[in-house]
Amino acid sequence: MLTIEPAEMQHLVETLGAIGEQPGGGIIRHVYDAAWSAARRQLMAWMQEAGLVVREDAVGNLFGRIEGDSPRTILTGSHVDTVILGGRYDGALGVLSALAALRALKRSGARPRKSLEMVALCEEEDSRFHGNFWGTRAMLGLVRQEELDDLTDLDGVTIGEAMRQAGFAPENYPSAIRDDLDAFIELHIEQGRILYDEHQPLGVVDAITGFYRFRVTVEGRTDHAGTTPMDLRRDALQAAVEFSSEMTRIVSEAGRPAVVTNGWWDVQPGAWNIVPGHVEFSVDFRHTNEATKQRLAAEIRARGEAIAKERGVGIAYDLAGDILPMDMDAHVKAELQAAAEACRVPWKPMVSGAGHDSQIMATKVPTGMLFVPSADGRSHSAAEFTTPEDAARGATVLVAALQRLAY
Amino acid sequence: MLTIEPAEMQHLVETLGAIGEQPGGGIIRHVYDAAWSAARRQLMAWMQEAGLVVREDAVGNLFGRIEGDSPRTILTGSHVDTVILGGRYDGALGVLSALAALRALKRSGARPRKSLEMVALCEEEDSRFHGNFWGTRAMLGLVRQEELDDLTDLDGVTIGEAMRQAGFAPENYPSAIRDDLDAFIELHIEQGRILYDEHQPLGVVDAITGFYRFRVTVEGRTDHAGTTPMDLRRDALQAAVEFSSEMTRIVSEAGRPAVVTNGWWDVQPGAWNIVPGHVEFSVDFRHTNEATKQRLAAEIRARGEAIAKERGVGIAYDLAGDILPMDMDAHVKAELQAAAEACRVPWKPMVSGAGHDSQIMATKVPTGMLFVPSADGRSHSAAEFTTPEDAARGATVLVAALQRLAY
Repeated sequence: MLTIEPAEMQHLVETLGAIGEQPGGGIIRHVYDAAWSAARRQLMAWMQEAGLVVREDAVGNLFGRIEGDSPRTILTGSHVDTVILGGRYDGALGVLSALAALRALKRSGARPRKSLEMVALCEEEDSRFHGNFWGTRAMLGLVRQEELDDLTDLDGVTIGEAMRQAGFAPENYPSAIRDDLDAFIELHIEQGRILYDEHQPLGVVDAITGFYRFRVTVEGRTDHAGTTPMDLRRDALQAAVEFSSEMTRIVSEAGRPAVVTNGWWDVQPGAWNIVPGHVEFSVDFRHTNEATKQRLAAEIRARGEAIAKERGVGIAYDLAGDILPMDMDAHVKAELQAAAEACRVPWKPMVSGAGHDSQIMATKVPTGMLFVPSADGRSHSAAEFTTPEDAARGATVLVAALQRLAY
Repeated sequence: MLTIEPAEMQHLVETLGAIGEQPGGGIIRHVYDAAWSAARRQLMAWMQEAGLVVREDAVGNLFGRIEGDSPRTILTGSHVDTVILGGRYDGALGVLSALAALRALKRSGARPRKSLEMVALCEEEDSRFHGNFWGTRAMLGLVRQEELDDLTDLDGVTIGEAMRQAGFAPENYPSAIRDDLDAFIELHIEQGRILYDEHQPLGVVDAITGFYRFRVTVEGRTDHAGTTPMDLRRDALQAAVEFSSEMTRIVSEAGRPAVVTNGWWDVQPGAWNIVPGHVEFSVDFRHTNEATKQRLAAEIRARGEAIAKERGVGIAYDLAGDILPMDMDAHVKAELQAAAEACRVPWKPMVSGAGHDSQIMATKVPTGMLFVPSADGRSHSAAEFTTPEDAARGATVLVAALQRLAY
């Protein structure tokens, strides 16, 4: 059994994590920017040093390959870009685990049956362009020509211009398409607190959640807070509060993995002494089963309409997203579980409540995901942390899984 | 019986309402500004024309007097300042009804037993300085010397400087004190929708509401909206929502005149995909009975603490105001009721859910209030409206009440 050591993972995480790190803490590494390019140069150096065949595609996905008997390829990795002031682990740990795994396998000297590749995907976080899994989509032929001009950053730079400035030829994007992939495995931090709270070292993902997102607008009547008796009010806030509370009850009663969040509120006119006449708030509802997702979303919507009717206020919904959940491939998942057993690493079946490249990859390639613990559930923050021991256990299971799939 | 005609009230309202009116509608007439001074000049002209003895005090309260056998005085009126973009009726209608009443009484020729005065109080709305019933407080000896320098407007002008610029000598403020008042009657628009909805022309006020105002801060934990199961959250928003809903239930069940409003909300970090970790919202709770007010306020606070404990979130309260309710004088109230009966104007006992000069005046002078309907309950808006007929009925009852009290 090939074992990855905690010290190796710690060194990799610290080295890559210093690239794009800001003076006050937190990393900014956006697709096609200088820190992103520097991070890729570091990865290239590591891969070359390990004897991997290094290649980048037309959109900037970076690969390191071990040629096997067959050109059919087992791919592993994650994304190298970060959110604004992100941490060292989200995405990066999947790339670095892939690196550690492939260089261990290369060192072992055995030639694989299938070819093996690691990948640093160029864009996942949507934090410079609304690229929406740009790197993965390019590999699957899901990028549309017009996106090169239509996707712009806050400075008005198009993604095509940004690619050219970073040394890529945007018009070549179709050459990024891959049809040689037999499997994709992504190791990622959980970004939640389940493994951490339960002291479990590993999760094997069953499914990635689907989203149903909409904005609720409640129209009541603005009234004087002193002179309008409670029984004569059409208080938009109280209707919104009841709706928020009810949808939370519905989703809580449905049990895991259903989640709903009302994270954004706008209460107007927003004065202490005026009954609110207009309230908007966001609904972010997620479930890994599409039928259940649609049933609960319909139940939530109907409950809101009933509350509005009872209270004599108006209600409107603006759909902001309805994204399908994605099951992981049964065979890949079984190999990940078997690899964990073989390595004697306890594992837990999990769902991913966050979106990942894997959910796009899974539309065309048999895909599986491994989760490692996030300390205190933190993510998208400089405070992200996974212990070197947990990182090493995850990478060791990844090596074992790659052996099972490619050797 | 002396009767005030709708046309007279309409003319007065339209003439005074044009002073300080803004191009897009709505009046700005703040204490000591140009529009305020112009409005007082118009009132002075009307009072002089009617043969009233005109006088202003050191802070700018404006009086018109009919001398009686006794120097003891029955006073009636309201405030002449407006909120920003206020309407033609709030305050103004009480001043104009007093004017209509006194000139009708003057025209009648009979000399009153007690002296009669109308007043345009200089400041009630708090919209330039936090004057907090400045004019009334000056008359009752409740202004403190240091307020002349401490109260400033948004431009940093002190109320003392503003007085001087408007032609008053601020250091003379103690000369405004009155000890000759036997009663004060204030006619005011309801600022609510009870009379309007019930097609009642008049309210006789039993009591003016007390306030209990505080800001609630709920501290939960910020979490990822996708990766944190419902049962592991410490969602500050859901705790706040339950508390808001519960206090509304408590107050609604207590029945009229209890009211509570959560008009202002700040939900942080305010992202669609993050469970809110910090929520603040305002509580404006009002009741006309102090014991009930304190009992319900304590019940609300305790309920919030229980909810916070159940949900494992922190809760804190910042008191923003605890103001006593004020009963109207039984004798003055009886005379107002008798006057309404004599005029065959149906009346309804009411409480005032808004604050008024009368609640300060009532601390030292027997005080009563008449309410006339506000169309659709509107106030503090250019859309304020009371029909000329309702205004005239109110002024007619005011005349009859002044006759009962002073003749």
